[in-house]
Amino acid sequence: MATRLDGKVVSKRILSELQQTVTGLAQQGVTPTLAVILVGSDPASQVYVRNKQRRAEEIGVRSLMFKLPEETSQKTLLAKVAELNQDPDVDGILVQLPLPKQLDERVVINSIDPDKDVDGFSPVSVGRLWTNEPTVVASTPYGIMALLDAYQIDVTGKRVVIVGRSNIVGRPLAGLMVNHDATVTIAHSKTRDLKALTREADILVVAIGVPHFIGADAVKPGATVIDVGISRGADGKLHGDVDADAVEPVAGALTPVPGGVGPMTIASLMAQTVELAKRRLHG
Amino acid sequence: MATRLDGKVVSKRILSELQQTVTGLAQQGVTPTLAVILVGSDPASQVYVRNKQRRAEEIGVRSLMFKLPEETSQKTLLAKVAELNQDPDVDGILVQLPLPKQLDERVVINSIDPDKDVDGFSPVSVGRLWTNEPTVVASTPYGIMALLDAYQIDVTGKRVVIVGRSNIVGRPLAGLMVNHDATVTIAHSKTRDLKALTREADILVVAIGVPHFIGADAVKPGATVIDVGISRGADGKLHGDVDADAVEPVAGALTPVPGGVGPMTIASLMAQTVELAKRRLHG
Repeated sequence: MATRLDGKVVSKRILSELQQTVTGLAQQGVTPTLAVILVGSDPASQVYVRNKQRRAEEIGVRSLMFKLPEETSQKTLLAKVAELNQDPDVDGILVQLPLPKQLDERVVINSIDPDKDVDGFSPVSVGRLWTNEPTVVASTPYGIMALLDAYQIDVTGKRVVIVGRSNIVGRPLAGLMVNHDATVTIAHSKTRDLKALTREADILVVAIGVPHFIGADAVKPGATVIDVGISRGADGKLHGDVDADAVEPVAGALTPVPGGVGPMTIASLMAQTVELAKRRLHG
Repeated sequence: MATRLDGKVVSKRILSELQQTVTGLAQQGVTPTLAVILVGSDPASQVYVRNKQRRAEEIGVRSLMFKLPEETSQKTLLAKVAELNQDPDVDGILVQLPLPKQLDERVVINSIDPDKDVDGFSPVSVGRLWTNEPTVVASTPYGIMALLDAYQIDVTGKRVVIVGRSNIVGRPLAGLMVNHDATVTIAHSKTRDLKALTREADILVVAIGVPHFIGADAVKPGATVIDVGISRGADGKLHGDVDADAVEPVAGALTPVPGGVGPMTIASLMAQTVELAKRRLHG
């Protein structure tokens, strides 16, 4: 049976270490501060934002919440971002996506100071990642690397196959993996004979949002399988992109859904907020 | 025998089309202008810069040459870049690398206005590439895509294996290939069992600078092979990373060295300079 890569346990440990770091920073007069902008009342976004705030408070990170009405204009939103860019007490700025349709996500994300872009979505952050410069990275890929690291699964020289090429998971994870010396393949909806490809993976990452897409026949025996998908089924339960019951006997290690990648994502957001705050000490 | 992917012929056609575009732009009062900064007297750099100037002149692109002494300070160089950033008559700015060691390449490249960064090396350009936004791209990857396109070799759904992960070839080419729906693998010095991997490639790109590294046993019969390497051997001749004599009977298509990727690179620089100049018409 596959080792369970327990994101709940690992993220708790990371958050507890962060709490100590934050206490140390407070003694030096720095309170790491995350500014979250939520436009409108999308129910899922509200849940995500509340979870982020809760984690922040638990570890002593100050979270500033800005709720703007659904009909907020681009100008008003950009002015808010500009104000937070200027505020020396704000370390990280996060604009919760998706935005109402009158707003241009690209323009808004690009307006965040790259040195406060804690989601790592701006072109400057993405460019720094791909040129292997120090940078903030999208939280999910960062969390996946931290989870592998916690279980001492080294990626150097490994065949890593990433299914899904989104800007928030697949692409940035590929950049991180290349920087960490993995041999990386990016697969997607246009990939032919996907199973033959995924069966070559020492580490298989699936991030497409199709429940139970990956069965046992798509996994090399002993492989590490990272399941990023999370969808609610007709049965009311949460399902990953991996058919866990089928894959568990084949894989060497597997992330559960829920409780795998999800908790690592929020912990990673906190870790990077704290990292950004540390810069205040060094100017 | 493999089809010869003739970069000389294709680049000539592209340059001749560009010449017509430039003539049209001139009639609208726009002369595409490329500013080249060369610091010091590296002999190879001088040759590259001269070739770029010559091509520019041939097609009616104005090239401004700024030769700065070896001992130029970072401040002086940054001031020069800032001046060119401001100059409305300059469309593209290129700082020839490598720079003398007192200068920080990263800082210098990052100081170029992303909208004039004709080499595509700045984080903003790289980030735009990887988020699939319109952008300038490094010339060599751009040229490879143009060469494949000229021979109607579609990359959609194809297995593309790129050997080499440099910032100027491997990484940006991977981004372009993902954006064009290829299934992309990035391999490098830490990759294990490289031959098994390269033999899976429908399109194999090699950019490592090791003469004759790829033999017939590393190529799938019928594959397209793109040889980016160019080194001068003890025999005084130029050699690619591919053992062309051995691979030609196996591959479906192959770029010669010289006369394959090389001429495409300069044509791509010109193509992108002209593209940048077109923006002047639309504001």
